[in-house]
This record gives sequence, structure tokens and C-alpha cells, in this order.
Amino acid sequence: MTERTIKLILEYDGTRFFGWQVQPGKRTVQLVVEKALECILHHPVRLTVAGRTDSGVHATGQTAGFTTTSDMEPMRLERALNGVLPSDVSVIEVLDANPGFHARYDARSRTYRYTITDRKISIGRNYAWRVRYRLARELLEESTRCLSGKCDFRGFSKEGDKEDYSTVVLKNRWTFQGNLMIFEITAVRFFHHSVRSIVGSAVEAGRGKEPPHLLKRILETGDRSLAGPTAPAHGLCLVHVDYGDSCG
Amino acid sequence: MTERTIKLILEYDGTRFFGWQVQPGKRTVQLVVEKALECILHHPVRLTVAGRTDSGVHATGQTAGFTTTSDMEPMRLERALNGVLPSDVSVIEVLDANPGFHARYDARSRTYRYTITDRKISIGRNYAWRVRYRLARELLEESTRCLSGKCDFRGFSKEGDKEDYSTVVLKNRWTFQGNLMIFEITAVRFFHHSVRSIVGSAVEAGRGKEPPHLLKRILETGDRSLAGPTAPAHGLCLVHVDYGDSCG
Repeated sequence: MTERTIKLILEYDGTRFFGWQVQPGKRTVQLVVEKALECILHHPVRLTVAGRTDSGVHATGQTAGFTTTSDMEPMRLERALNGVLPSDVSVIEVLDANPGFHARYDARSRTYRYTITDRKISIGRNYAWRVRYRLARELLEESTRCLSGKCDFRGFSKEGDKEDYSTVVLKNRWTFQGNLMIFEITAVRFFHHSVRSIVGSAVEAGRGKEPPHLLKRILETGDRSLAGPTAPAHGLCLVHVDYGDSCG
Repeated sequence: MTERTIKLILEYDGTRFFGWQVQPGKRTVQLVVEKALECILHHPVRLTVAGRTDSGVHATGQTAGFTTTSDMEPMRLERALNGVLPSDVSVIEVLDANPGFHARYDARSRTYRYTITDRKISIGRNYAWRVRYRLARELLEESTRCLSGKCDFRGFSKEGDKEDYSTVVLKNRWTFQGNLMIFEITAVRFFHHSVRSIVGSAVEAGRGKEPPHLLKRILETGDRSLAGPTAPAHGLCLVHVDYGDSCG
């Protein structure tokens, strides 16, 4: 039997998961999806993934890949997976990918969305960070304007032990819907806690505690100690991974 | 002390509530809000309400009213309430209402929203009914076109023991966002299970099992046995109650 490479686009509610990556004794998305695939395909499966989301982080466009010798139609595999997977993980699409497709290395960019609210909400409260200050929309927008083109994310990374923290920010924007403030950012790569650290710093600017050029200074100095408190996981969602074409 | 009438606009996630109305031994929204008010105001509170939502039904614009001798500022009461209420109930607004304001009798119309999806979703799955058939958008729209102006909702009501099931439908429309199909309807009054029964019937038409004029026949005959299965509670949300002005 010939080996095929399959690409999966996944949605999950991160609330009850210990993030993506397999960890002993923990309920993780990777574990749940690999087990579901093994039930259906009857062979061990090891997934590659575009973004290893942290505990509590959600996704509507996570992308994973694996190889199989099964000849099951993508449409049938999608239905079988959605039948086997628990309610907090869904398969949006199953596609045949190019041989050698790797969800992480082949990704050209990732898009994350972070949702904030400055009033108490009940519906959708698992998907938005409730901030206890009034935030000035224009200060939020002004603070993140510097995130464009080539950037050094050293100051927006949890670890400090990498050589290179350079990335390219392709797009970022705020949208405002009632009491929701939604920040979307697309970049070639992100580091651990990058988006949450950017949002935490933008909120310090938005509430007027720090000047709006705070983020610019963090970019320029790489000094993580200047950054605001890291925003909580549950406001973050991986919405899209771009591969330049539709089949990896 | 003079008595004031207060109007509350409430949002709640109905998932873990046995509906609005107080019932012995059950966690209901009315109970939780009355208890919170009693903690803050130190006197018994009995709420009037615009729409007694069923178990599992959500609200973003439920409206309730009560009288108090307290002179607490509406803004302070709002903050105190949001501090005391659990995460699945929020106060959106506290307003001084006209004396004698009654949330139910003074309401001119109610707007409900029902959300359907025809693919498995994980994020927001507590707020949408997942239907296992492909639904034709144009059949959904065609089926509900008859719901306009004076209507007899006898065939869209759980009980059959009222004299009068007449209402006036002021507006209804479908909107489609990706895989979400959202039905919004505004009417002077609704009866028990009306919206869920309308949506259940529209889905029978949308999937092609019944002709799109099914709803028109139910309206004309008042025959509940013609209606499709009642749509589940968790897709329904009370979004707005209109009082003709802003202060009841």
C-alpha cells in the first residue's frame, strides 16, 4: 500500500484541554485526535501541527498532518472523525496533502485572534478576557501600530534562550463589536506567549497606565520586563494557518 | 422612604439553569438574581419579567423589574450586582423605571434569536443547534415568509388550553454566517415553545422533508400535529424586549 499524507483542519474549545501537546496523564488535543484516528485507521498515528497551543487556548483553524496507508476517502474520514471525537473538538476539513507535508515547517503564516471585553459577559465568557478597566479603543490601536513587517519578538517571548526571535508581521488589526475588542495578528512565526504578551501590553496602554509607544519600546529593546502581564489563555484563538495553497 | 421601580437588563447563559422561573430545589435565573438583589438591598425582592425562558434557553436582553425603597444609584447597583452574581448571569443595565413599570405587561414586543448549524462545531456549541442534515437556505427563508403581521400561533404553542393565540409578528429574518443559520423574530407576544416550534418546522422544510408552505398551513389550521419536532432549547436566545422608550 502506498503512503498518503493527510492534512486536517481542526476546531477546538480549549477550556477543558491541557493544550495541544501530548503530556503524560493529561487530556490534550493531540492525544484525543491521535486516539480517534487510531480507532478509525487501525494503526499508530503521530500528528505534526502548525501551532502547539497552550492550555486553555482555542482554535478554529488549527492544522495538523499525518501519514497513513489507508485509502479511506477524505470525506468519509471527516465524518468518521467527527463521530468519534468529543464535542469540544471538531474536524472542519480533511484533505489529501502533498507528500512530505509538514504542518509546522510548511506553514507560511499563522493568524491568531484575541478577544477582550471590558464589561462582564456570560454568553461566550469562555472565549474572551474580561478586563476590569475601561479601555480606550484608539490607544489600543495606536499601541499595536508598530507591529508591522520585520520585528524582533524577543521582548514578547516567554523563554529567552533562543538565538533568533525575528519574525515578519503581515497584518494586525483591531475590530470592535459592542463590548468586544478583537485583536487579530498574522505573522510568519510566533514564540511562546507572544500574542498574549502583546495583548497584555496593549491593555496597559489602552487603560492609560503606560504610554501607547510601550510596545515599540519592547520591540526595540527586546526587554521583556517592560511588557504588561501576559493576557490569559482563554481569550486566545488560533484562527488560520496559511500554506500558500489549499493542499499543503 | 419613597418606593422606586427599577428595570434590569440581563444576559445569561442558560446552560446550567432550570430556566427563569423559581421552582423548589432548582437553580433558576430568577432565584439567583433575586437572592443577589436581597444581599445588596437587604429586603425581599420579587421580580417581574418580560419572558419566562425555559430550561437551557439563553438571554442577552432579558428584562426584569422590581420595587425598592433603597436610594442606591443605578450605576452602583449594577456594579454590586455584577460582583455578586455568578459568572453565567450578568447585568447589562440598571435603570430607574416609571412608577408601576411591569416587565411583562408593559413590553411592546420581544425579539428571539435561534441559531442552527449544519456542521459539527466546538466553539459556541452551547449556543447553536447542530442539525444533521444539509439545509437549503432558500427553503428556510421561504418557509418563514408567512410569519408577518397578525398571526394565530395556536399551532405553534405547547399548550392548547388558551382562548386566544393571536399575536402580531413585526419582523423576521434569516442571516447566514459561515455554517451558522440565524433566525430572528420579533412579535408582540409568544406562547410556550413558539419559536422552537417554528424553527423545528422550518428545518423540516429546509431539509426538504416537508414543503416550504408547511408553516403557512400550520398558521392557517392551528394544527400543532403538523409541526416539526420542537427545536432544542440551547439554540434559543431572548435578545431584546421593546418598551417603546428607554425607561420602561
